[in-house]
Amino acid sequence: MSAPYNRVALIGLGLIAGSMALAIRRAGLAGEVTGFARSAETRDVAREIGLCDRICDSLAEVVEGADLVVLCVPVGAMEGVAREIGPHLKPGATVSDVGSVKRAVIEAVGPHLPDAVHFVPAHPLAGTEHSGPRSGFAELFEGRWTLIVPPEGADEDAVQRLETLWQGIGAHTDRMEADHHDLVLAVTSHAPHLIAYTMVGVADDLRRVTDSEVIKYSAAGFRDFTRIAASDPTMWRDVFLNNRDATLEILGRFTEELFALQRAIRTGDGDHLHAYFTRTRAIRRGIIEAGQDTDAPDFGRGKKT
Amino acid sequence: MSAPYNRVALIGLGLIAGSMALAIRRAGLAGEVTGFARSAETRDVAREIGLCDRICDSLAEVVEGADLVVLCVPVGAMEGVAREIGPHLKPGATVSDVGSVKRAVIEAVGPHLPDAVHFVPAHPLAGTEHSGPRSGFAELFEGRWTLIVPPEGADEDAVQRLETLWQGIGAHTDRMEADHHDLVLAVTSHAPHLIAYTMVGVADDLRRVTDSEVIKYSAAGFRDFTRIAASDPTMWRDVFLNNRDATLEILGRFTEELFALQRAIRTGDGDHLHAYFTRTRAIRRGIIEAGQDTDAPDFGRGKKT
Repeated sequence: MSAPYNRVALIGLGLIAGSMALAIRRAGLAGEVTGFARSAETRDVAREIGLCDRICDSLAEVVEGADLVVLCVPVGAMEGVAREIGPHLKPGATVSDVGSVKRAVIEAVGPHLPDAVHFVPAHPLAGTEHSGPRSGFAELFEGRWTLIVPPEGADEDAVQRLETLWQGIGAHTDRMEADHHDLVLAVTSHAPHLIAYTMVGVADDLRRVTDSEVIKYSAAGFRDFTRIAASDPTMWRDVFLNNRDATLEILGRFTEELFALQRAIRTGDGDHLHAYFTRTRAIRRGIIEAGQDTDAPDFGRGKKT
Repeated sequence: MSAPYNRVALIGLGLIAGSMALAIRRAGLAGEVTGFARSAETRDVAREIGLCDRICDSLAEVVEGADLVVLCVPVGAMEGVAREIGPHLKPGATVSDVGSVKRAVIEAVGPHLPDAVHFVPAHPLAGTEHSGPRSGFAELFEGRWTLIVPPEGADEDAVQRLETLWQGIGAHTDRMEADHHDLVLAVTSHAPHLIAYTMVGVADDLRRVTDSEVIKYSAAGFRDFTRIAASDPTMWRDVFLNNRDATLEILGRFTEELFALQRAIRTGDGDHLHAYFTRTRAIRRGIIEAGQDTDAPDFGRGKKT
């Protein structure tokens, strides 16, 4: 496969940009990968570990001559970045992003881009609970989905080039409409994260159980929640503020269901509970069959590599 | 270490009993391990894979001459088993269990045991989402906690022998009072499980997002929930019915907190969200430092062995 871009610029050097930089360079998918982060400390670390071919000290410099510019900053920071880079973008360049929310990003970023630039938003469904320039690794996207969310009338060649890049670093790609993307992610990611954050907070608040007990005896269940709840606070704040309606809709349904299960516990309705738990088991089987996870009995064991 | 028991009888040959059988025999901690399960099919599988030294076809037979009898059946089935084995227990024997709830087990089992038998309830904080006689493995308890919950006035020698057994198969042990145990577990395990079950059910109900989309794009967050929600339905039904008050208390607090976070999303209160998410991150760090999990960046990657 020939390199789809001569120069790729990554803005925001956290887990996603760092992993993209390492993966793109390893696969030889760009002539040069430039990088910029707002924080001088992050830029220093990125230089020290050789994350990109070149780390730049300004937004104007990092996008200069770039064929692809990828915004890898929290969703709430994208509008400011778009406004600043707009005048410096090369005509014919593609601007993309990796935000977990798509409608809000399209509305925030789109208006600041010149007509001669293609805007193709995207969202890689991959991550860890770690963040920062040292957290990236080239294999992050392997076997994972990246959703491409082209606005109406997007240039087909620009969309395909972006798909080629993501596939080149190991991802599967699918196209999805922005509002539907935001609903799907509210179900599969945003609501679960908020729920995990909440449960971890409750555990911490409960005075009759000490923190050390919670930590020491955090058996199956709670440990997975804490892993989720350790994710980057700024990123997640912006996700919830920018996917408000879909998240609140899902949480509303969640609360309804939870109340029904609580009622079953209170009234001793074991049949209701058993039927519910049997149904959820089948969904897990579907996920394993779809190849999104393994069947290895690691849960509750911490046998993670 | 000399074997703490001559004969150990395991009742209910699922994940926990199977793992205990394999671990006890590997470590040479008993002269003989006998096993019984109510289902003839389970007994056949246990015989086929050589899970115990001897598989028995009745409760009377499996406990005959046993120095330790461990009830490894769902919490709701323990009273019936206790009633049936009571008359067949050897004087001086110890009866224990592995139930996730302790107060209800003590009340259900205790009255059926003869005075000449020691009753030392226990709860190994280990498991996977798999169940049945083929799911056991000898390493399940290594590095995990087993909580020993001796009733008031329990025989100290009997308690220590049970601790020796658990430590011999790799577990750390701690002693805890029954009601406190049930509260700690409601926080760290029971409420998180119910929440995960609920979220997985909501995802399945939502008609505008297809099951295949949920499954295909189940990124970080939802996958961990499905793993939790795949656990044994009968076991979990019994846990909730038998730890009702503590579970409902925690769920009540959870709902309060969730409503506060929902309100912050609705009103756009980013500071509240950011502060909450920052606090939960610290709890995760505590868990890693306590050695209950690893810091490897596997979350969202499915790089599980």
